[in-house]
Amino acid sequence: MSRIERRVERLGLQLPATPKPVAAYVPAIKTGDYVHTSGQLPILNGKMVATGLLGRDVTLEQGQEAARACVLNALAAIRSVIGDLEEITQIIRMTVYVASTPDFTDQPEVANGASLFLEKVFRDKGSHARSAVGCSSLPRNSPVEVELTVEILERGELDK
Amino acid sequence: MSRIERRVERLGLQLPATPKPVAAYVPAIKTGDYVHTSGQLPILNGKMVATGLLGRDVTLEQGQEAARACVLNALAAIRSVIGDLEEITQIIRMTVYVASTPDFTDQPEVANGASLFLEKVFRDKGSHARSAVGCSSLPRNSPVEVELTVEILERGELDK
Amino acid sequence: MSRIERRVERLGLQLPATPKPVAAYVPAIKTGDYVHTSGQLPILNGKMVATGLLGRDVTLEQGQEAARACVLNALAAIRSVIGDLEEITQIIRMTVYVASTPDFTDQPEVANGASLFLEKVFRDKGSHARSAVGCSSLPRNSPVEVELTVEILERGELDK
Repeated sequence: MSRIERRVERLGLQLPATPKPVAAYVPAIKTGDYVHTSGQLPILNGKMVATGLLGRDVTLEQGQEAARACVLNALAAIRSVIGDLEEITQIIRMTVYVASTPDFTDQPEVANGASLFLEKVFRDKGSHARSAVGCSSLPRNSPVEVELTVEILERGELDK
Repeated sequence: MSRIERRVERLGLQLPATPKPVAAYVPAIKTGDYVHTSGQLPILNGKMVATGLLGRDVTLEQGQEAARACVLNALAAIRSVIGDLEEITQIIRMTVYVASTPDFTDQPEVANGASLFLEKVFRDKGSHARSAVGCSSLPRNSPVEVELTVEILERGELDK
Repeated sequence: MSRIERRVERLGLQLPATPKPVAAYVPAIKTGDYVHTSGQLPILNGKMVATGLLGRDVTLEQGQEAARACVLNALAAIRSVIGDLEEITQIIRMTVYVASTPDFTDQPEVANGASLFLEKVFRDKGSHARSAVGCSSLPRNSPVEVELTVEILERGELDK
């Protein structure tokens, strides 16, 4: 188990099983020095951790937990492509889509559930650019969807 | 005509004319080994194939057709930059924005209209990371907007 | 002061102070030949230039001004990372999130406030791929949020 995964476990969490590739699109893709994930939902143990809109059905705290669950799935997706999360040299970008009523405007607080988690797990490699926006609805009635782009350094390059 | 365009035609479809560059922004841009498209609308023969929100005005099937029409325009935009779609080595990312009522949560099914089309046309080069999200509304009352990032290998590099 | 900043000033505008890094995420990040910004809000002199939804609370003209203010903050964020905006070789991508009622569909006109500004300041280096979409709401009740990706050429490379 890598250091990164040990840190995840010390937070009382666990990376989900590698997500199954879906027809036509994939959980994550590597290109050059980057891995891009598909938009990830907050599904843990086969169940959405919450459903509905922030500002109506879901509390801020539930939204933060959901954002963190999305990141766990994003990391599992990345691991399925590069094998070892230690190869991540920097988290680059995160977009946090938050299913929101027109009056809910605390998307950054929801997104902090994901950003603070990345910081705890990746330390200075966890700093990232971030956008948090409100969506009218999200797939499967999810309250949050997260996509990540990370920079990687391949073992081969490290050995040079 | 390239193999890629022949496959499009065998599906009974056709790439639209190269979109006209709009002042200030462009249909697609090349940087390094990538081409990024602007958000594309489902306009074919000068007409939006459907208008309105999923969950109110537009059926799932119409949404899927619209998503596919957006991809046709995205490919035309990419062709206008690189000349030949055969130079695409991999479809990397697709974001599918779906104009949705708060109760419509089948964005992935809408997006499949685009993903399955890419798979048919690009085969294994068509696998991509994907996000599908619900928007309160989209430009020109469009039900779907799609942006694509593709990886390319320039002829020059192939010749080396 | 760089040529780019002089052009901004000739438009009667000014780059804001470098945004303070926020815990866990950063205003902008450099990776390879690119700088990606976080989603920027239209805050000038510590105040949001407008709040609310397009189609209900905010006029098209106010939305365009807000979009331009977002870009000013994005450029300040980029400057904080690369030091000199002259190093930008091309504006690559811009996503313009517009807080919209379901009936507001003029997101491209709002986004033009940002695109035309980039064109005036960066000339041919200002052409970019762009997506403009409607959001149910945005952080801090902002009417617009903008994220930018730019291509840079480092001094070192220029000297070679």
